[in-house]
Amino acid sequence: MSDPDALTVWPLRGIGEIQAGDDLVGTIVAAARGALEDGDILVVTSKIVSKAEGRTRPACERDAAIADESVRIVAENEAGTVRIVESRLGIVAAAAGVDASNTAEGTILLLPVDPDASARALASGIRARTGAHVGVIVSDTLGRAWREGQTDCAIGAGGVVVIEDLRGETDAAGRPLAVTLPCVGDELAAAADLVKRKSTGLPVAVVRGRADLVGDLDLPGARSIVRPAERDLFSLGTREAYARGLADGSAGTGG
Amino acid sequence: MSDPDALTVWPLRGIGEIQAGDDLVGTIVAAARGALEDGDILVVTSKIVSKAEGRTRPACERDAAIADESVRIVAENEAGTVRIVESRLGIVAAAAGVDASNTAEGTILLLPVDPDASARALASGIRARTGAHVGVIVSDTLGRAWREGQTDCAIGAGGVVVIEDLRGETDAAGRPLAVTLPCVGDELAAAADLVKRKSTGLPVAVVRGRADLVGDLDLPGARSIVRPAERDLFSLGTREAYARGLADGSAGTGG
Repeated sequence: MSDPDALTVWPLRGIGEIQAGDDLVGTIVAAARGALEDGDILVVTSKIVSKAEGRTRPACERDAAIADESVRIVAENEAGTVRIVESRLGIVAAAAGVDASNTAEGTILLLPVDPDASARALASGIRARTGAHVGVIVSDTLGRAWREGQTDCAIGAGGVVVIEDLRGETDAAGRPLAVTLPCVGDELAAAADLVKRKSTGLPVAVVRGRADLVGDLDLPGARSIVRPAERDLFSLGTREAYARGLADGSAGTGG
Repeated sequence: MSDPDALTVWPLRGIGEIQAGDDLVGTIVAAARGALEDGDILVVTSKIVSKAEGRTRPACERDAAIADESVRIVAENEAGTVRIVESRLGIVAAAAGVDASNTAEGTILLLPVDPDASARALASGIRARTGAHVGVIVSDTLGRAWREGQTDCAIGAGGVVVIEDLRGETDAAGRPLAVTLPCVGDELAAAADLVKRKSTGLPVAVVRGRADLVGDLDLPGARSIVRPAERDLFSLGTREAYARGLADGSAGTGG
């Protein structure tokens, strides 16, 4: 489409298996084949960032790895088959992002140590090598509280706005907009997932058409998407919070 | 990009203010200017569906409208300034989808009575009038439990898969995929939001490049994205669940 506001999303091809220590900037730039332009946003699956950073552990250490990556349990189902935790990154998810698919045989993969730093390093490196003023989102696949299925979200960001601030803007009739903080970081990750698909080995996609979101490397990272504790109405699962109240009530200590 | 897996998303222009009773199929087909092809997915903001269906009430009835559209309160903050409810559609959101921006002066807008039925009627009508085998997503903007900002999600779907089922599929090494139920309905809505933007009056976007998701009109609707109660670990806010436990414990009735 020739619409000036059209968005184009396409996967980078030819990115093979990533090993610890690989030059991810070089790999991505080679796969882009000179196509990157100012304002392009690269959405990079966290899996390949973790692999390049050597964030693997033996598969037999899965439980220990999840425990190490978690700061607390948020909720479990009654059967104990589903456990939602808050990870050290503040992200609420199953298994703290520890992943056993698309990893080397006998290994599991942890999330990058600092996905925002990883995203900034990638953006900086790709900018330096191509001259194109790009942004980078590092994505992971997350479940949701009340909705089935998973969507890709931004867990790292470098040089790209993750939450647009439309507060103060008005609708067509001049009244304040009701929805004022679109999380474009998560929307970019979601759009990219539509072309990466899950089983096809396409870990990087380029989104072209929202150059207005690309900016300095010191823009807030994806950590800023994590809701702070004082604004979190769902910091504990319903069962867990009820049980805590029940215990306090029975002991006469709550209030 | 000429990549066969590229996704293109563009907004339809020229859709003016929608009034109750307007022929939305005709409006969308006219705005598409003959560009629709088999496999295109139209993402239609619920707001214009509600307007066409006459789902308005006087602005002074806002509290009553929210109460009517809600089946229960899920969570409130301590100050009472944030209230999360479950709507009659099963969707957990602030204000039950009742909206006061981009509406006619002095009115508020409720969600469509049955967004899946609306989406199917639109898909059916657009297919009949254009001959193009398209799918339709009706979108709304939703907040999330643990993440700041809002993203557009699918609240209605007609002729398009909303949750891909990759269970049984394997990764590049032949092992089962960990993430098996991508909510492509929400990802399509998110991608569309990136071109609609909030304040620009572009209520419809076309997503081209995932024709594999377009199918019969009797595919499950977006209602299937709503997590059923028995799988919902966050059916009550933490404060509310704790208070209930505390009351039961104090009365010696809980367990």
